[in-house]
Amino acid sequence: MATDPLPIAQDLIRCASVTPADEGAIAVLERALEPLGFQCTRLRFGEVENLFAIRRSGGNGPHLCFAGHTDVVPPGEGWTHPPFAAEVEDGTLYGRGAVDMKGGVAAFVAAAADVVADGTAEKGTLSFLITGDEEGVAVDGTTRVLDWMAENHLVPDMCLVGEPTSKERLGDTIKIGRRGSFSAEFTIHGIQGHVAYPERADNPVHRLARVLYRLTEKPLDSGTEWFQASTLQVTTVDVGNPTNNIVPAKAFARLNIRFNPTHTAVSLEAWIRGILAEEAPRHDASFSCSGEAFLTEPGPFVDALRRAVQASTGEEGKLDTGGGTSDARFITRLCPVAELGAVGTTMHKVDERTPVEELRRLSSLYGAVIRECLG
Amino acid sequence: MATDPLPIAQDLIRCASVTPADEGAIAVLERALEPLGFQCTRLRFGEVENLFAIRRSGGNGPHLCFAGHTDVVPPGEGWTHPPFAAEVEDGTLYGRGAVDMKGGVAAFVAAAADVVADGTAEKGTLSFLITGDEEGVAVDGTTRVLDWMAENHLVPDMCLVGEPTSKERLGDTIKIGRRGSFSAEFTIHGIQGHVAYPERADNPVHRLARVLYRLTEKPLDSGTEWFQASTLQVTTVDVGNPTNNIVPAKAFARLNIRFNPTHTAVSLEAWIRGILAEEAPRHDASFSCSGEAFLTEPGPFVDALRRAVQASTGEEGKLDTGGGTSDARFITRLCPVAELGAVGTTMHKVDERTPVEELRRLSSLYGAVIRECLG
Ligand SMILES: [Zn+2]
Ligand SMILES: [Zn+2]
Repeated sequence: MATDPLPIAQDLIRCASVTPADEGAIAVLERALEPLGFQCTRLRFGEVENLFAIRRSGGNGPHLCFAGHTDVVPPGEGWTHPPFAAEVEDGTLYGRGAVDMKGGVAAFVAAAADVVADGTAEKGTLSFLITGDEEGVAVDGTTRVLDWMAENHLVPDMCLVGEPTSKERLGDTIKIGRRGSFSAEFTIHGIQGHVAYPERADNPVHRLARVLYRLTEKPLDSGTEWFQASTLQVTTVDVGNPTNNIVPAKAFARLNIRFNPTHTAVSLEAWIRGILAEEAPRHDASFSCSGEAFLTEPGPFVDALRRAVQASTGEEGKLDTGGGTSDARFITRLCPVAELGAVGTTMHKVDERTPVEELRRLSSLYGAVIRECLG
Repeated sequence: MATDPLPIAQDLIRCASVTPADEGAIAVLERALEPLGFQCTRLRFGEVENLFAIRRSGGNGPHLCFAGHTDVVPPGEGWTHPPFAAEVEDGTLYGRGAVDMKGGVAAFVAAAADVVADGTAEKGTLSFLITGDEEGVAVDGTTRVLDWMAENHLVPDMCLVGEPTSKERLGDTIKIGRRGSFSAEFTIHGIQGHVAYPERADNPVHRLARVLYRLTEKPLDSGTEWFQASTLQVTTVDVGNPTNNIVPAKAFARLNIRFNPTHTAVSLEAWIRGILAEEAPRHDASFSCSGEAFLTEPGPFVDALRRAVQASTGEEGKLDTGGGTSDARFITRLCPVAELGAVGTTMHKVDERTPVEELRRLSSLYGAVIRECLG
């Protein structure tokens, strides 16, 4: 009989582990995994508690890693069920993290128990990369655990991230990439003056208008086989000049770009710097990238995931690269990575919840994934 | 012997008539003008004290009006001589209004005394239109006196405004027109959303960039015979969005246009409304015009002024339409109007001052103007 993920999910939800608090969540996993033969290593970086747990078999089979997080976003107000009580009502489990992603972590732990029980686990290596800082700044979380794994020769052959990728029905969507996120902000300097004597002034707002016009007049690209077109959004422009007879001295703008692998942070910065140099040579600019775009090209790992989805759920497992960023952006530098998990409708919302039945179906989907990947 | 304008200027400066305060300034003029045969009418509108003074002769000669103001801008800090003491040091008169334009008013009063004394005043009609609200909102000043003059059949044949028009040497510049000043502000409405899902948002900043690009990409015109090109200056753009992952709901901009008679407030509003309609149909916009452009085409009046300037000062009396607005923008609807006065270098500044000798030369220039206009 299949292991029930519900008690594990409830134990996790009852730890109020709002980033970066742990509140015993990692310990719940240690207690569940050690009896299954997992060797658990706590990795504390800064104030973040992380866990790497690995179960080796005798053979040379592949190493599948499950990556997830035990931290959650703050619950906010207005819940019909207490956010950290993990109450079940009418077959539905309520609680912060039920979907994103304590439910997913619990489902994979239950699946691991099943494949240990039926012997499939002997065909390869299973591991868990669990962080307490995915919802936060993500500095002392997955990226540092990955460094540690690389130093310790524990790089997996493939990695499944348990984010809630399903849109309407469990298994309808597998994420095989994510767009990158790039931000720029700049202050354009002009020369202040009176509007009656503009020949003595240099209007930075006019320069800004030309810069923004050029940045936004054409699409950045037309998308790729797996990605929608990259998009640029100017989020603010600010001058704050209260008087309508003075040409201001400077003008500020900030923008964000969600980009597909047609671009990189370096290419985007060069493009913006080029336009600034032409239209507004006197400027201060700063740029930041919270994650490059990445794609796990369809291949054996993605094929295995789709077979598991189709067999376990009857869904197609549509390959997708939409949405925001996840820790998969860090993992991609080590091995093929994809994301597959619960229906995400209520994630980050009040009354986050999942039908218990769906949690169990996720656990058997993960079991199918393990069998396909190690088999 | 010529009447000395210095004591009149000093009496005026010693009234601390910062707009809209009068502090006895109008009374100084009444005391000077009534003995010369001027009939003085106080015109109080709102909290503003104004004066219309007229001296008729028996004949049918022309009516020359001198328009000026007794209000001054606040003195500010840091004067080497008290701003309302009218001290003379090393032949220089110091005080707020010495240039703009108590000095000019005093110079014209002294010139009037001279032409009354020598009989020239009998060739026509002289009048003074003096307001206490030129530096302020100008609502209860010149414009209301002009209405009163029209109602009372006192419309002059020509009007000289005594603003400090000279740039470097007395008489080097006569202003025969002024650009208009037009302001617009608008809020462009979009649809707020997350930068990762821009297809569900409508970025008002991008629409604003297109509007501003179109408003500023080409000059409004290339100037006219008497005017420099009209200019548009965007003075502020503001969104105030603190978060770089949210497309804002709206974006604000404000601009000012200084325009020559190629345009009117109506034509400018129509032009901007057209661009807004095309690029940002959802917007709120408001428009205001603090003065239409005007030009007194060179003709007998302007010719008379130039002859007076050349004879009295040896300067060319270059015709000009630059700079900000003045009350001439109101007078133009009644009669030909031009502006001629002191060197304006220190106007509105700390230690506003004029050489006493230059004040006397301004008085004889005004005497020459009266002789040319009434002669
Ligand atoms: Zn998550
Ligand atoms: Zn003035």
